[in-house]
Amino acid sequence: MNARGPVVSARGDANALLAEIAGIGTDPVRGGYTRPVFSAPERDLRVWFIERAVERGLEVETDGNGILWAWWDPEGTDAPARRDAIVTGSHLDSVPGGGNYDGPLGVASALAAVDVLRERGIRPVRPLAVAVFPEEEGSRFGVACLGSRLLAGVVAPDRVRALTDDTGRTYAEVSADAGFDPALIGADPDRLAAISAFVELHVEQGRGLVDLDRPVALAGAIIAHGRWHVRIEGRGDHAGATRMADRQDPVVIAAETIRSLRAQTLAVDDARGTVGRIVVTPGGTNVIASAVDLWMDVRHRSEDAVHTIVAAVTAETQRAAASEGCTVTVSEQSFSPTVEFAPEMRDALQSVLLDAPVLDTGAGHDAGVLADVIPTAMLFVRNPTGASHTPAETAGADDIAAGVDALSDVLAHLLTR
Amino acid sequence: MNARGPVVSARGDANALLAEIAGIGTDPVRGGYTRPVFSAPERDLRVWFIERAVERGLEVETDGNGILWAWWDPEGTDAPARRDAIVTGSHLDSVPGGGNYDGPLGVASALAAVDVLRERGIRPVRPLAVAVFPEEEGSRFGVACLGSRLLAGVVAPDRVRALTDDTGRTYAEVSADAGFDPALIGADPDRLAAISAFVELHVEQGRGLVDLDRPVALAGAIIAHGRWHVRIEGRGDHAGATRMADRQDPVVIAAETIRSLRAQTLAVDDARGTVGRIVVTPGGTNVIASAVDLWMDVRHRSEDAVHTIVAAVTAETQRAAASEGCTVTVSEQSFSPTVEFAPEMRDALQSVLLDAPVLDTGAGHDAGVLADVIPTAMLFVRNPTGASHTPAETAGADDIAAGVDALSDVLAHLLTR
Repeated sequence: MNARGPVVSARGDANALLAEIAGIGTDPVRGGYTRPVFSAPERDLRVWFIERAVERGLEVETDGNGILWAWWDPEGTDAPARRDAIVTGSHLDSVPGGGNYDGPLGVASALAAVDVLRERGIRPVRPLAVAVFPEEEGSRFGVACLGSRLLAGVVAPDRVRALTDDTGRTYAEVSADAGFDPALIGADPDRLAAISAFVELHVEQGRGLVDLDRPVALAGAIIAHGRWHVRIEGRGDHAGATRMADRQDPVVIAAETIRSLRAQTLAVDDARGTVGRIVVTPGGTNVIASAVDLWMDVRHRSEDAVHTIVAAVTAETQRAAASEGCTVTVSEQSFSPTVEFAPEMRDALQSVLLDAPVLDTGAGHDAGVLADVIPTAMLFVRNPTGASHTPAETAGADDIAAGVDALSDVLAHLLTR
Repeated sequence: MNARGPVVSARGDANALLAEIAGIGTDPVRGGYTRPVFSAPERDLRVWFIERAVERGLEVETDGNGILWAWWDPEGTDAPARRDAIVTGSHLDSVPGGGNYDGPLGVASALAAVDVLRERGIRPVRPLAVAVFPEEEGSRFGVACLGSRLLAGVVAPDRVRALTDDTGRTYAEVSADAGFDPALIGADPDRLAAISAFVELHVEQGRGLVDLDRPVALAGAIIAHGRWHVRIEGRGDHAGATRMADRQDPVVIAAETIRSLRAQTLAVDDARGTVGRIVVTPGGTNVIASAVDLWMDVRHRSEDAVHTIVAAVTAETQRAAASEGCTVTVSEQSFSPTVEFAPEMRDALQSVLLDAPVLDTGAGHDAGVLADVIPTAMLFVRNPTGASHTPAETAGADDIAAGVDALSDVLAHLLTR
């Protein structure tokens, strides 16, 4: 069963598994972790996952989209059929300066749940896979949930191969350098058809469970969210020698975009709008910029509300740009409609987890992408700070253990019903 | 006389000299040139300069501040005294994505002027040096005119050694790696005392000569200018899961700083205020930033007006930050009072250049730093686009030749009077 040497972490202990990777991809400048897809730390995390899965007797494969699948086949299936499978898992990549829980908690809890199910003597009647999805954050190539989107066929492989990172290198180049064949990416309907349910456990990225004083919740919906790239072009010039009246300064327009997004978002109850990434070209202190690129992240339970906000900000930005002599292009990088998780899945899970509360979330997840094509559910584990995408993100050891228990209960139900 | 092989460029031809370096430090992303101090292209330009100077029989030395001095000593001075010297020159470093004229035009014109003076049979009674000053733009370490400031003793060597570039490396580390001893930087009063006049020729960085339809001007004054670093700290968080009311978003405050600077600058006649550089940390699309660093460049003929604008923007930024729960620190990186060039120098040059117009400039120069300690003058050459710090910066071949003629006339006067 264990071809890779001794088991390092205690069985069933997601806290111990997380501790094993606490030194991988630390970011000395931002704090926390920076683990972009295909980077050295992300590849180290893949190796760690494969080793931990193999130790548990799971059979690991990497599919054409770079998704890892660690299979626990029912006993007596020497040539595993792998139909009607249950899948759980999450992601190991991070935003720049993120925490150690967003993604890895779901992966570690899935591995720990396999241990718990065995300790309990559960005999699955169908296969279980622990999956790791690449580029969930979209922090390298700009499209969140890239692995699950490719799998589900909702993003075109040619578009993905041409996506570029901050250094201008394409997905095709970067993935090939990391040992993945970019010719193999794309929809995999056979694989999806063999999956009967997907469950993702994730650290909560808000204060819902803190407010409820509870350790674990079920997801109700993922609110609609999208990303828009705003490019503002002006005319580069000397900061000292150019009269104010002669300027076409895109930085001034970018400030207007930021102001407008805040105002338009505040005008819609419970909407969220963020600019977290700005690139000024050329970026010299004594240089009037020639261009600014910035990205807007907008979310609301109502898809129409999201589009209304983006349209209003676009119009205000274009008005400001016209008076400055700048030009603006706004392009949608991704858009995810509101995802209501399958009611029958939620009902099934509530029958197991009895009194677990149901929470909506403003964060996107691979589960949100897969919910369109597979019966899907999510579990959230309490995050005392409510913070995420920052080193302040956290989860208590007891809550993590409660999450593993809840996931084990759910998987036991799905694997044996 | 010529230890380095054949002369490539025609004598007296600054256009040909500039063409020789047109392939060094090109920037494929921004366009134009990126030649930061101590980078490979900047060091290639130093080698080019040394070769061209040696070809002309000039004796080249590099001083402790990394300034190059190419000496033309009067005939018959075997052990050159180098007192009462005339110095001309400029810089070879560039802003990111700058042009090929800002800096190099003054260096190439100085070398060409040496040729012209010899062709004219001028017999100097005092030495001439062609000087190249490092980090004039301040685009790597944030302090403009760093070489001349060190020479003049108006910036502390300890402070300079600790300055960091965008990658966090110090001036001491970077300069040492490039072969310069950082222990040697600092004031050089003996060298300054041996100089009786400095003349810098520079491409104009505005449209003054275009409006006057003239090729060459004398500088009247450099208007006061400074740089301020604004650091805004908030709280990093998830862009989707964090309610608007719970945010402490420094990007929103940065937008207010930009808006305030534009408004406060427009309120003062002929002031200039620019934000051209912004760094968002951590910089993810779906991440509320934890901090923003931005830099303000503010200029006006009145020093008080500059300080009034900065104080008003600081106050408005702090008010906005307080309501968002962010903190702000504004620190002066450099400040240069208005520099009126020596009237006796200007009178002397006007007696040579007869009808040359006199223009103020909003751009800083090494000549502005040295004007406090040496009789100093500047010549400007027409820039048809009026643009600078961008690839659109240019100068016509005939105007460049006119600039070399004017500089030669001025140097002939100063070297023989």
